[in-house]
Amino acid sequence: MDKKFWITKEPINPNDCIKKVVRNEAGAVNTFIGTVREYTDGKRTLFLEYQAYVPMAEKKLVQIGKEIEEKWEDADTSIVHRIGRLELTDIAVVIAVSTPHRTDAFEASRYAIERIKELVPIWKKEHWEDGTKWLGDQQEKTSYAANNPLKEGMRDD
Amino acid sequence: MDKKFWITKEPINPNDCIKKVVRNEAGAVNTFIGTVREYTDGKRTLFLEYQAYVPMAEKKLVQIGKEIEEKWEDADTSIVHRIGRLELTDIAVVIAVSTPHRTDAFEASRYAIERIKELVPIWKKEHWEDGTKWLGDQQEKTSYAANNPLKEGMRDD
Repeated sequence: MDKKFWITKEPINPNDCIKKVVRNEAGAVNTFIGTVREYTDGKRTLFLEYQAYVPMAEKKLVQIGKEIEEKWEDADTSIVHRIGRLELTDIAVVIAVSTPHRTDAFEASRYAIERIKELVPIWKKEHWEDGTKWLGDQQEKTSYAANNPLKEGMRDD
Repeated sequence: MDKKFWITKEPINPNDCIKKVVRNEAGAVNTFIGTVREYTDGKRTLFLEYQAYVPMAEKKLVQIGKEIEEKWEDADTSIVHRIGRLELTDIAVVIAVSTPHRTDAFEASRYAIERIKELVPIWKKEHWEDGTKWLGDQQEKTSYAANNPLKEGMRDD
């Protein structure tokens, strides 16, 4: 995969992102990896399903990379998000940001995951032990019906 | 390598640490990777050499892992540091911390790299374009002669 920002149905290897940002100018790489957790507030997850509006999701990931380049000097970013069915401990998302010095790498990586959850049209379906639920956005604050990221996304295309 | 905290002469793969902390209870892994940077304040590095007092360095890495477990609930940590000759872009250190939620993973990973630089007896020799210099500690604030981590380390053994 030559892209630096992409959506995939395949298992993710963190090195796919890390290798794209390691370079002579960087002394630090911060990597954030989101994995499928078993318990949330005492409820047991069996597995997850992610769906995305792929072209828009990749476009938004590219945008986040540009925002990071503007905010942190000489930062380089790569992000991949997986969709489809994910089992416990599977990697859902990897962010890698390289910078000359480490403080910037930590800050920019943190910024990236928060922006992904605000901005990127990816839907998560929780398969709990006692049922299923589509979560409307990645912040999980609003329901699917009330806040469909596709609507905003489509206007942008 | 079965250890979760170790010093190595071999090239480091970040997955060596990441795989040791991914687990059902965790939803987040933060990874910090330190790499050999070419330019520092306009001076060009050709390559680096790291030396360590290995048993004490590994003991201090274990200690940092314990500190993290005490400070962040349900955190799991793995750290590897390379020694010997490292070329530009080579990985010198990898920290991976997994936690149930992401804020803790970022904070604990940041804590780990600061503690490594404070605490772990590893010496760095810069091979600049115009000469060499042994740096006395990883904070690079004191000279080798004035602050030899081995002295403190030996007392502790």
